[in-house]
Amino acid sequence: MKRWPLPYPMYRALQLARNAALAGEVPVGAVITHGDKIIAEAYNSPRQSHDPTAHAEIQTIRAAAAFLGQERLGDCDLWVTLEPCAMCAGAIVHARIARVYYAASDPKGGAVECGARVFDQRQCLHRPEVYGGIGERESVTLLRQFFAERR
Amino acid sequence: MKRWPLPYPMYRALQLARNAALAGEVPVGAVITHGDKIIAEAYNSPRQSHDPTAHAEIQTIRAAAAFLGQERLGDCDLWVTLEPCAMCAGAIVHARIARVYYAASDPKGGAVECGARVFDQRQCLHRPEVYGGIGERESVTLLRQFFAERR
Repeated sequence: MKRWPLPYPMYRALQLARNAALAGEVPVGAVITHGDKIIAEAYNSPRQSHDPTAHAEIQTIRAAAAFLGQERLGDCDLWVTLEPCAMCAGAIVHARIARVYYAASDPKGGAVECGARVFDQRQCLHRPEVYGGIGERESVTLLRQFFAERR
Repeated sequence: MKRWPLPYPMYRALQLARNAALAGEVPVGAVITHGDKIIAEAYNSPRQSHDPTAHAEIQTIRAAAAFLGQERLGDCDLWVTLEPCAMCAGAIVHARIARVYYAASDPKGGAVECGARVFDQRQCLHRPEVYGGIGERESVTLLRQFFAERR
């Protein structure tokens, strides 16, 4: 059966998630694209960096905004291997990210299709286009492996 | 009529909010205390810093975690002049902040008593003690003045 290859940004985000696992961090990776160019990439690293806000999404948003020299990223898309949490969904709104592509859903910590559903709140000032499930199988495998090794 | 004086951390957070206004940023200030010591303070500065995540709360959480050299701030309290948004409420959860004191409610962007009510989600891993209304009058005056001058 033919399977479409992953779009390169999600392929790269999954590579970054693997790097997170190697560093002992929950394997989540993210990249931000501007047109067809990757302008920021990061993996989840709150332990290493002693920074509870150092999720992959927050790091890429900060790096992309610094790179473009502006507070808002309306022409940018975010690719991330796990459904964003409330903190990261809120940052996506503040940054005005155009599209969010994520791989695996996160019933325990997600806040897009699960939990706080940040983009669905009536007060939400910006709703990105959201596409879930791209690279889901690969991301779920990485996460399961990481937690299985730690049990 | 006697009025109790503000606790010093909120008085300081309001000073920081005034500094934000002077810098052309929405006037919000925050401090983090560890015992009776202020270990981090910041004002809202996304425009100045080209960083959509640079709310006062995120900056103080990052600074306090760096100062203590640990990802979690379970012995710390956050004092902020405006109800935290979804991004900041999520960061408060990740950091395991013990108590959150805030001055003014924010029906437009708040996510504690308004909107996404992040701490009330069933999936929420940590619920800080929350105290609203301390310094509310001072904070509302600052915010109204800031927006009135810009209309």
